[in-house]
Amino acid sequence: MTDLKRSWVDSANSADSPFPLNNLPYGAFSIQGGAPRCGTAIGEMILDLAALEEAGVLGFDGTLKTGSWNAFMALGKPAWDRLRAELTGLLAEGAAAESRLKAHLVAQKDATLHMPFNVTEYTDFYAGRHHAFNVGTMFRGPENALPPNWLHIPIGYNGRASSVVLSGTPVVRPNGQLKGPNDEMPRFGPSQRFDIELEMGAIVGTPSTGPISISEAYDAIFGYVLLNDWSARDIQAWEYQPLGPFQAKATATTISPWIVTAAALEPFRTSGPDRDVPLLDYLKEPEPMLYDIDLEVTMAPAGKAPTVISRTNYNEMYYSAAQQLTHHTTSGCPMRVGDLLGSGTISGPEKGNRGSLLELSWGGKEPLTLDTGETRSFIEDGDTLTLTGAAHGDGYQIGFGDCIGTLKPARPITH
Amino acid sequence: MTDLKRSWVDSANSADSPFPLNNLPYGAFSIQGGAPRCGTAIGEMILDLAALEEAGVLGFDGTLKTGSWNAFMALGKPAWDRLRAELTGLLAEGAAAESRLKAHLVAQKDATLHMPFNVTEYTDFYAGRHHAFNVGTMFRGPENALPPNWLHIPIGYNGRASSVVLSGTPVVRPNGQLKGPNDEMPRFGPSQRFDIELEMGAIVGTPSTGPISISEAYDAIFGYVLLNDWSARDIQAWEYQPLGPFQAKATATTISPWIVTAAALEPFRTSGPDRDVPLLDYLKEPEPMLYDIDLEVTMAPAGKAPTVISRTNYNEMYYSAAQQLTHHTTSGCPMRVGDLLGSGTISGPEKGNRGSLLELSWGGKEPLTLDTGETRSFIEDGDTLTLTGAAHGDGYQIGFGDCIGTLKPARPITH
Repeated sequence: MTDLKRSWVDSANSADSPFPLNNLPYGAFSIQGGAPRCGTAIGEMILDLAALEEAGVLGFDGTLKTGSWNAFMALGKPAWDRLRAELTGLLAEGAAAESRLKAHLVAQKDATLHMPFNVTEYTDFYAGRHHAFNVGTMFRGPENALPPNWLHIPIGYNGRASSVVLSGTPVVRPNGQLKGPNDEMPRFGPSQRFDIELEMGAIVGTPSTGPISISEAYDAIFGYVLLNDWSARDIQAWEYQPLGPFQAKATATTISPWIVTAAALEPFRTSGPDRDVPLLDYLKEPEPMLYDIDLEVTMAPAGKAPTVISRTNYNEMYYSAAQQLTHHTTSGCPMRVGDLLGSGTISGPEKGNRGSLLELSWGGKEPLTLDTGETRSFIEDGDTLTLTGAAHGDGYQIGFGDCIGTLKPARPITH
Repeated sequence: MTDLKRSWVDSANSADSPFPLNNLPYGAFSIQGGAPRCGTAIGEMILDLAALEEAGVLGFDGTLKTGSWNAFMALGKPAWDRLRAELTGLLAEGAAAESRLKAHLVAQKDATLHMPFNVTEYTDFYAGRHHAFNVGTMFRGPENALPPNWLHIPIGYNGRASSVVLSGTPVVRPNGQLKGPNDEMPRFGPSQRFDIELEMGAIVGTPSTGPISISEAYDAIFGYVLLNDWSARDIQAWEYQPLGPFQAKATATTISPWIVTAAALEPFRTSGPDRDVPLLDYLKEPEPMLYDIDLEVTMAPAGKAPTVISRTNYNEMYYSAAQQLTHHTTSGCPMRVGDLLGSGTISGPEKGNRGSLLELSWGGKEPLTLDTGETRSFIEDGDTLTLTGAAHGDGYQIGFGDCIGTLKPARPITH
């Protein structure tokens, strides 16, 4: 574990700052209604990288002026490493560049954040063992909880890229086909079991046109965001056989605004769990490829204080993003810059570690009581759900910025 | 049913031509290694629409010069209608424009075709009743063949846009995890049950950000292509529970090169089938929204003549593309220009009408005998599969151009 790297931006040197010099996450921001531009968060500030590229301080083929990180990612890993090294030098305590760069710092509180990259395609996995076990137990009992393929395949499905939104975007409760187990016919109406899924999102930065190895996959991942895969459990229950979730997970998937690079997470690498059955060779990791990232979920009814409803860690995953990406390419499936891979819901072993309300309220049978006195089985209109995450080093942390969404009432049904 | 519209391009006036003046399908082509440009097929020729826009004969904001139809589609339905009307006038027998336009005709045999549009996202449905019944019967018996939701929901899943390729692109047999019912452990190797799926693809031309009605959905579809959703049945069988097909359908999906517009298909509208149970209101069609399109599949072993292995019709579908698109938006899922919706496999009631080898060979139990003497349960290396389709009018047809793929051997396994 490395120590805090000190910066001449004072607010970055606090042990509480999510954005010390060790982090340097990448985002897109605008000020006063201007066009989005690329920036990196440092302490309470954003360094305007578009301005630095315009000024010739940085040279990355104009990619930092685009307001989205896709073009920069497409430059490849050597460029990723060079930008990080240059920024680390420019922002370090005592750097000669301080006086020149100060003019290009913007306070985060004055900036509007935008989607940091264009999501090319979105794939969501189901790779948390505790989550799979909990959900399987509810539906099939503990003996048959894990599907037979689960310990062999990083199970995933294609999600809907058009529905991925930035933290802070309101989410509208979906309407859909609903049919309870005792209903004779389905009806069309608002989901009554709308839920979160606490996940990490891995962003593919290196394209591929055929199968890639685990090591190639690890190197292909540019960075990570927090990800909330909003899920309508009642729509899902009726629609998902035999081809998987569709409209249940197409309303919205919210991501946090800063891409935390794989490079920043390097000191926090950790191994996956012991395996009940050996993985096939193509999925075996030559070195640790998960990360130790503490995660937390809060829920706040409208106008009320938030309650922490879950605490867990990304190291609970059974499969790493590298394993998921390798598996994703086995068929020859081409991967492109900006592809987003959701980890699957991250639950830990205890009740307080569960990453969805479905698990936390055990399918609605054990409602949660919030600190403010309200009870919740699923999300109610006006509730705000917030995911936070940080890797904790020695006197510093690598924070992700919040991943927030407030649920709005369903649209009226007009037909 | 309208009659043949005669053109001054003679080859367009033959009853055998797939591309009479009634059709005017849109594609992208290049000549002698040049950049792709937009064109329309007329008889044996292509009219160079990029050149006509450069020359000021057509005026569509430069969109026809892009070599892809996405930008034109984004102009909206009034522009779609205007281009079709203008081209119909310019190419009609006796049109004054003949002498001016002749220089902008390119023989199809001299042109290289390209993807006619960029696939934004790809969704595949499961909306053919005979197909669903056949597959369900094989797996669960005829009493439980149709899943309980099937008569209520146009069942679909998100596919992989990056794997959609143009007709003629070779397809490499995928490797993947395989586990037979009697195997104790899975293994990694080439799919042994690689298959086709005969489908139509509908292209979304009008974006939406919330739920849309059936009529809005019908109007939002710009046009149609033939679509072969290549499927590895053995990979699918092991991976698809509980989240649906993933790597089994990510190797390739082949589309035909010409977008046949919804406007050209208008005379061939037909109703869906009688319903066993009433559809929910949001799925009820106010007027016929399917099309009468004859479809055919041929199979040719390497170096051998093709055998027709299936004949069916798009009017066998239980759900139209408009119904599928409406359902797709119920959750609020945003749709974008260039989204591609696969109809699902189109099988008719008889054995000779089945749109997949899984059905034609009844899971491999009843191998096909080709005209050349070979037998086939699934696709063998070197086999060429070709889908063709046409709507048949009075003395003319609306053809789609072929949708072709040849299977190449699997990649060596290097780990």
